[in-house]
Amino acid sequence: MPTSADSVFVARSDGISAEGVRDQYADGKAAKVWEIFIGDKNSRTDNYKNFLIEMLRQKGCKRVLDVACGTGVDSLMLVEEGFEVVSVDASDKMLKYALKERWNRRKEAAFENWVIEEANWLTLYDDIKEQIKDGFDAVICLGNSFAHLMDAFGDQREHKQAIGNFEKCLKPGGVLLIDHRNYDNILETGSTPAKSIYYNTSHTADIKTSVLFYCGKPSLVSMDYLIAGNKLTSEFRLSYYPHELKRFQEILSEIFTAKAKHQLYGDFKEMSQVKNPAFYIHLIEKPKA
Amino acid sequence: MPTSADSVFVARSDGISAEGVRDQYADGKAAKVWEIFIGDKNSRTDNYKNFLIEMLRQKGCKRVLDVACGTGVDSLMLVEEGFEVVSVDASDKMLKYALKERWNRRKEAAFENWVIEEANWLTLYDDIKEQIKDGFDAVICLGNSFAHLMDAFGDQREHKQAIGNFEKCLKPGGVLLIDHRNYDNILETGSTPAKSIYYNTSHTADIKTSVLFYCGKPSLVSMDYLIAGNKLTSEFRLSYYPHELKRFQEILSEIFTAKAKHQLYGDFKEMSQVKNPAFYIHLIEKPKA
Amino acid sequence: MPTSADSVFVARSDGISAEGVRDQYADGKAAKVWEIFIGDKNSRTDNYKNFLIEMLRQKGCKRVLDVACGTGVDSLMLVEEGFEVVSVDASDKMLKYALKERWNRRKEAAFENWVIEEANWLTLYDDIKEQIKDGFDAVICLGNSFAHLMDAFGDQREHKQAIGNFEKCLKPGGVLLIDHRNYDNILETGSTPAKSIYYNTSHTADIKTSVLFYCGKPSLVSMDYLIAGNKLTSEFRLSYYPHELKRFQEILSEIFTAKAKHQLYGDFKEMSQVKNPAFYIHLIEKPKA
Amino acid sequence: MPTSADSVFVARSDGISAEGVRDQYADGKAAKVWEIFIGDKNSRTDNYKNFLIEMLRQKGCKRVLDVACGTGVDSLMLVEEGFEVVSVDASDKMLKYALKERWNRRKEAAFENWVIEEANWLTLYDDIKEQIKDGFDAVICLGNSFAHLMDAFGDQREHKQAIGNFEKCLKPGGVLLIDHRNYDNILETGSTPAKSIYYNTSHTADIKTSVLFYCGKPSLVSMDYLIAGNKLTSEFRLSYYPHELKRFQEILSEIFTAKAKHQLYGDFKEMSQVKNPAFYIHLIEKPKA
Repeated sequence: MPTSADSVFVARSDGISAEGVRDQYADGKAAKVWEIFIGDKNSRTDNYKNFLIEMLRQKGCKRVLDVACGTGVDSLMLVEEGFEVVSVDASDKMLKYALKERWNRRKEAAFENWVIEEANWLTLYDDIKEQIKDGFDAVICLGNSFAHLMDAFGDQREHKQAIGNFEKCLKPGGVLLIDHRNYDNILETGSTPAKSIYYNTSHTADIKTSVLFYCGKPSLVSMDYLIAGNKLTSEFRLSYYPHELKRFQEILSEIFTAKAKHQLYGDFKEMSQVKNPAFYIHLIEKPKA
Repeated sequence: MPTSADSVFVARSDGISAEGVRDQYADGKAAKVWEIFIGDKNSRTDNYKNFLIEMLRQKGCKRVLDVACGTGVDSLMLVEEGFEVVSVDASDKMLKYALKERWNRRKEAAFENWVIEEANWLTLYDDIKEQIKDGFDAVICLGNSFAHLMDAFGDQREHKQAIGNFEKCLKPGGVLLIDHRNYDNILETGSTPAKSIYYNTSHTADIKTSVLFYCGKPSLVSMDYLIAGNKLTSEFRLSYYPHELKRFQEILSEIFTAKAKHQLYGDFKEMSQVKNPAFYIHLIEKPKA
Repeated sequence: MPTSADSVFVARSDGISAEGVRDQYADGKAAKVWEIFIGDKNSRTDNYKNFLIEMLRQKGCKRVLDVACGTGVDSLMLVEEGFEVVSVDASDKMLKYALKERWNRRKEAAFENWVIEEANWLTLYDDIKEQIKDGFDAVICLGNSFAHLMDAFGDQREHKQAIGNFEKCLKPGGVLLIDHRNYDNILETGSTPAKSIYYNTSHTADIKTSVLFYCGKPSLVSMDYLIAGNKLTSEFRLSYYPHELKRFQEILSEIFTAKAKHQLYGDFKEMSQVKNPAFYIHLIEKPKA
Repeated sequence: MPTSADSVFVARSDGISAEGVRDQYADGKAAKVWEIFIGDKNSRTDNYKNFLIEMLRQKGCKRVLDVACGTGVDSLMLVEEGFEVVSVDASDKMLKYALKERWNRRKEAAFENWVIEEANWLTLYDDIKEQIKDGFDAVICLGNSFAHLMDAFGDQREHKQAIGNFEKCLKPGGVLLIDHRNYDNILETGSTPAKSIYYNTSHTADIKTSVLFYCGKPSLVSMDYLIAGNKLTSEFRLSYYPHELKRFQEILSEIFTAKAKHQLYGDFKEMSQVKNPAFYIHLIEKPKA
């Protein structure tokens, strides 16, 4: 018997990563299209960029760990803004774009110090132990990345293990910034809003959404993208665990303890300003001693 | 882009049938376990058997077409009760059990006349043309069989084509008896009642239910069976199209026309007698001229 | 490490049989094309038919076990000629054609007594125990069938087990008639003669031959057939173990003992009459007590 | 019909590379084990290292294109010896080790100028056009790498296309150094010598060799490695096109023209000094105008 949806649903644009972890970007196709889709760093929405930079500055963050750097677009932005960045990703197909950019700009001091490594969330603390020192000022996990981690055992133990590792990488008083799509809304409507809050893109995407319930529990959301642009038409599927808001907040509290300050944002705005957001962004602070 | 759930969800206990049609029983494993699970004909519930026989007698049916005979358990019962039976199934792995039984009892006149053929619902009328004559008195499609036919194009055209073929095989005044699980309830609860209304079994089955929504539409229900008994433990998956009651009735009306008499039963009882049935059984009469 | 070529080479027209045995005909496609290719029984070459019938008559054989009956073409010939035949095959996709023919002609006494069963060579003696009685007068395994059995362990133990079962099914004095292509020649030339000695066919076949050596030992011969005829063009692959003549004779002697009479034929003729035959046919007699 | 062995034989340790080219190292496992197996650069045999360096110096080479750099072990050696190196490989799983080494030693001027790129032999000239300038002094393709390129069309057109690209990347008077195992011997004996001429390894490897003939032509050699060492036991398969010496020389002559100087070495020694070498190394000079 499968213990989870993961074993009953097969993603098409898949591969196996270097470390044996499932890596949805391993076939390189997704990485390539993704880069086109996302476009260059300049297309990041001001809204998103301002939110992120301001948040990190306001909290006095200097050393930032980007645990889902992908092709490096966000890390690059932070490096350019003067943060000291350690970027990790489980997918070496994604990472190679970041590595290439770093090499090309190695003469700039900020890039010289940019650390980029392969790492796996489930063993993150051990994977990057020597980078941690007294702990990072901030760990960021953005762009709906966390939802890539499935629930292989049906009890979310790996979600907790990953967030536990994020917490261990933080110094006391450090902050975790983590987001996920508004899956409550996707589960309710069966569809995914195509507009991104992260980037400005001239490429149109049609997203067909599949939702899989296993024993009555939402277990998998699969998005089939049809992306048109630059004469290239691409289809690919990305599959996600559908984090429901309430449950996700419970897990954060469980890991960071009840006394941790937890702030919720919708589409990078105050919750009071946005109705039915496409994304939820959680800011949670590791308690000091 | 997949046009239906069928292309995004992979059944495990699968195979390819002789005729190129997808045949979930093609690997023989399902057929073998199924036989154990269902047990011999004597274990058919009296409730089911009485309903079926009585219904056919009451309608004056003599020639019956069983379009989903599988291993032959229901057809056999009808043959023994004196009906003239033509039995078809798309799965030759299933049919071989029926063929063997017929051979073993070939000396009995009733079995001598039992016609068993491979046939595909989508081409049924042509496949068995020579058996049709003036049309059958009854076509039966029971045991949740119809739901095995997926919706490859996303518009139920194949469901309509199959039911259209059933209708064409009937004489005017003939009846179609067709059932499906109460998928409305499965969709609502995410689980499948393990108890069968069809057979008495001493084997316990644990059914894990997966439900897949594609673009907000229920598109696939997958049941992972864990069957224990006779020292044999088996797992297999059967996948179904989740027919919702209202939509299924609309399709029947569309094919049989609005003036066709249509009677609905729940678990082989009058609807007034059963609350939230596990199965819906439709009895619909082909209008006379 | 694979212990044999079987694990390193993948046949394309494959399936899994009902009993878990690898069944190259399980997908039904091969069976269908094969039937077209071989054509009906009347197209059997006179040479082949005369050889077989005469041999069996000359040896006084009445009860014959056809261990590779396939679609039944040879068994049917024997039934028509008055032999008492038990026909078995591991592939139910193939058997169904034989079963159908038997049913259609069930009114003929000879067919009434024709026994057709699924059986596996590796468990043959147990599979058909009740048919054996005092042993068969003859066991036939023709049409290059035996070479379908691969050498899963690299030491031909399964070849010996199968031939051991054939021997056990014979009465003392009974004969085994078993053939295989002239693989010595195929290994030497890398090509397979397209002309069949078994049947007259108007369909042309192009056979592309692959030969796999594993650790220096010939381990697999794969034949890609391109068959054209009746507006149907079909490709399929059948894979064989390349039995070398000398080794095959050693195995027969090992199983039947050194005192067994062993006669070799080439293309159903005396060896003296045929140079470089396409097929070798072995006739070996089980010693009397 | 498959047009080549490539389509009938499936390698197990496989993947799909970023660029759609088949990349046997794409699953990362091979790369990891390979690195352990090969060990660090210091374990390169003196024999090999001296041969390579001396050869390049003697020919007055400064700019070297390593078209099969893999994890970078040879290129690194050349960089350290003061050559100006451009290193390419089709496998980004392999390349990442080279990229990491370059980054770690970026402060050393020699590494600063080391160019590492993904490239495909079939499009090599276009892939690295801007690196070519007046042409390289030498192109090296060593370590049995060239044999990874299969013969998809059965006429070696891709072998010619790749070598044609190597030739185009050379300046007039530049040299191609390319090797392949002694496949003539492997075809004859069915086994592969385990000892490497390239590196000193304390890991023992057992190599099981499969050879596939397609229509009588040697088409594929597959080596199943069992590598033990460092508590890690690994199995993997690498598949090769079995270049026969005579045919390979003909192709080199066809591409470089008949007037090109062509020197053959065995295991990095003069042919007169080595009997039945494990590897053949070809040194061929692009004619000057």
